[in-house]
Amino acid sequence: MKNILHYSNKNIGLLGLGTVGKAVYDEIFTNISSVLVKNLTKSRNIELSNVKITNNFQDILQDKNVETIIELIGGETPAYEYIKESIKSKKNVITANKEVMAKYGKELLELATKNKVFLLYEASVAGGIPIISPIIKDLSANEFKSVRGIINGTTNYILTKMSRENLELIEVLKEAQDLGYAESDPTSDIEGFDAQYKISILSRLAFNSDVSLDQIYLEGISSIKSKDFDYANELGYTIKLLATASINSNELLLVKVHPALIPNDVPMASVNGVLNAVEIDGDLVGTLWFQGAGAGAKATASSVLSDLIRIRNSDVQSIVNHKKTYKITSMDKHFCQYYLRLNVSDKPGVLASIAKEFGERNISISSVLQKDLYENGSADLVIMTYPSIEKDMQASIKKITNLESVFNIESMIRVESYK
Amino acid sequence: MKNILHYSNKNIGLLGLGTVGKAVYDEIFTNISSVLVKNLTKSRNIELSNVKITNNFQDILQDKNVETIIELIGGETPAYEYIKESIKSKKNVITANKEVMAKYGKELLELATKNKVFLLYEASVAGGIPIISPIIKDLSANEFKSVRGIINGTTNYILTKMSRENLELIEVLKEAQDLGYAESDPTSDIEGFDAQYKISILSRLAFNSDVSLDQIYLEGISSIKSKDFDYANELGYTIKLLATASINSNELLLVKVHPALIPNDVPMASVNGVLNAVEIDGDLVGTLWFQGAGAGAKATASSVLSDLIRIRNSDVQSIVNHKKTYKITSMDKHFCQYYLRLNVSDKPGVLASIAKEFGERNISISSVLQKDLYENGSADLVIMTYPSIEKDMQASIKKITNLESVFNIESMIRVESYK
Repeated sequence: MKNILHYSNKNIGLLGLGTVGKAVYDEIFTNISSVLVKNLTKSRNIELSNVKITNNFQDILQDKNVETIIELIGGETPAYEYIKESIKSKKNVITANKEVMAKYGKELLELATKNKVFLLYEASVAGGIPIISPIIKDLSANEFKSVRGIINGTTNYILTKMSRENLELIEVLKEAQDLGYAESDPTSDIEGFDAQYKISILSRLAFNSDVSLDQIYLEGISSIKSKDFDYANELGYTIKLLATASINSNELLLVKVHPALIPNDVPMASVNGVLNAVEIDGDLVGTLWFQGAGAGAKATASSVLSDLIRIRNSDVQSIVNHKKTYKITSMDKHFCQYYLRLNVSDKPGVLASIAKEFGERNISISSVLQKDLYENGSADLVIMTYPSIEKDMQASIKKITNLESVFNIESMIRVESYK
Repeated sequence: MKNILHYSNKNIGLLGLGTVGKAVYDEIFTNISSVLVKNLTKSRNIELSNVKITNNFQDILQDKNVETIIELIGGETPAYEYIKESIKSKKNVITANKEVMAKYGKELLELATKNKVFLLYEASVAGGIPIISPIIKDLSANEFKSVRGIINGTTNYILTKMSRENLELIEVLKEAQDLGYAESDPTSDIEGFDAQYKISILSRLAFNSDVSLDQIYLEGISSIKSKDFDYANELGYTIKLLATASINSNELLLVKVHPALIPNDVPMASVNGVLNAVEIDGDLVGTLWFQGAGAGAKATASSVLSDLIRIRNSDVQSIVNHKKTYKITSMDKHFCQYYLRLNVSDKPGVLASIAKEFGERNISISSVLQKDLYENGSADLVIMTYPSIEKDMQASIKKITNLESVFNIESMIRVESYK
């Protein structure tokens, strides 16, 4: 638990204690006054002794302490009514509900403006990836040409696995369900409804146009077969469920969700598994790319809680910074692999003498390439080390430079770690 | 010109009319009261008749109309003094100045808070890519583990070209200078100072720690040789100038800029030319990836102008939406390539009959693969078309389905266009 809000008021009402609800609860339970659950007697693996638990929404609505309601029930009913009633009662609302924001977003946002409360919903599209706020704020000077992306993690997981393991959808789906990546009723993901809700929300923001769901072309992934991946690959493509909203040459907006072949050599083709990615094209900024975890309890909580801080900061005059500070370390202690290129004498024993110096500092060699024998009897020697400490490497280099058989250390480049 | 501010007050002072200054001027000249230039007599290819032009900063500072000053001079002197005096005179400041924000950011931000004005600087890091605002706001609930990226377009252009064309730095640099991708004095880019300023700014934000420049390890690209790319490649890597700020296992912060080998199969290896990319690792959100144009007049103007809208919106009660709306078009008119898989009779003339139906609707075939002959005498036929209109494709498919030699159309997948 972080003290994200930097105060101890219990002014938050939480609707829903599913996976995202629990993740949010874990981070801010000291600020939660009451929690709405469906089933009061269900055993939950969390400590709930300091909050009011209820299965009656009116209890939360009438809790005078509650200034902000976080809605994490999902689905249209009863979430839509709860959000509406909360706003009418002058409570701020944070929601991850794409279905409600797609179907009733315009109405609810207007209602929030009228009631002078916040309605924030960054978590409703692409989980933890900031996409709603960048479109509204950071890129607000742009006219957009297109927004397109992979915004449903379940289908992307399924398509990735079909592609890699030569399996049919039905086989992969069962496994995805067992792993919790797909719902027991997977219709909303497989048939593209989930992506349709999300692209509807993004379209409203990027193009300032209210796009109803029946105006969005929709095709799910249920007809894709394993062999399609083989053939697509032979042609240089892979297959993804893509949601796009774009302006055509007649200044008309087309919004659609369907499986698409993606050339293997563009970044979208490498968005695999449950990852999400959104590509935005603006008249000033050009093409921007956002990629990250599109779902998951913690990633979604990241957006919900950052929205909460946004509301908190608007309430106080100066922005309170809750983050801890860090001391600075030096490069000396950095630990990584190294690539070295040396110009050496082409005689036996050179590598041994270098390896000996490295050995003194516990630096091990991972690969060696012997290159380009020159007329003067020297040769290039390329060495890749195992991860080592910078200070040791620098000390070794000094020693190695002084070896008689080493004419020059021409390059030392650190290898970036991706674990 | 867009009416980005949605009012006609001339309340902006612009410092500098270089490439970014001109791009900003082009979009908002109706809102600019006065412009500071170095040389009053220099001929500029823009219409300046409706603004005051001066080479004396005091004229702008004392212009009562000016509420916000946009600083696009660059460099430490005199920009630092101008920004400081502007803030002290209770004017909002928007700047793209990484050097000033790296060296004096802490002091200036505190001064702005004290004077209750905005000091916004999204354009100072990674040009048009939103990165400062996402760290401050959209991801504010996270503790960050690392921020790393390619944040200098000039060196990335040079390294990319060295890698692709087997050239030495000195050869590529001359060309980059001729093309305007590198300055006549390229020291700040080549030696890594530019990247150092930027990672200093990101470190302050992500880690809430003021990192002075001498605490940042710095190594430029001047020692990289063409052959290093060959050898790195043989080992499965490419070479990039990487800036990183990360917390080690002892909770210490290391900030550094140096050339790094990047495994060919991670996204950072594919960030080529003048592109920038930043990868952020947060405890809740996991790994996020932002990529786009890191420099260029329009991309930088995107950040400057979006900051301006941010200031404007904080001034008015309800947010004025300046964007035009769009009408909706239907999928019928969508234009793309198609991938089709058909189960057909394995007899001569089948392809001809299909091609004839496509021809009737002006759909041309780009590739054909004949696959999997089955025992029943049928075969799989895979067809890739040239770009065609959806309505025509749908009509053709109906006709083709009825052909005697076509047993079934098993797949029709649209090919996503990347131009």
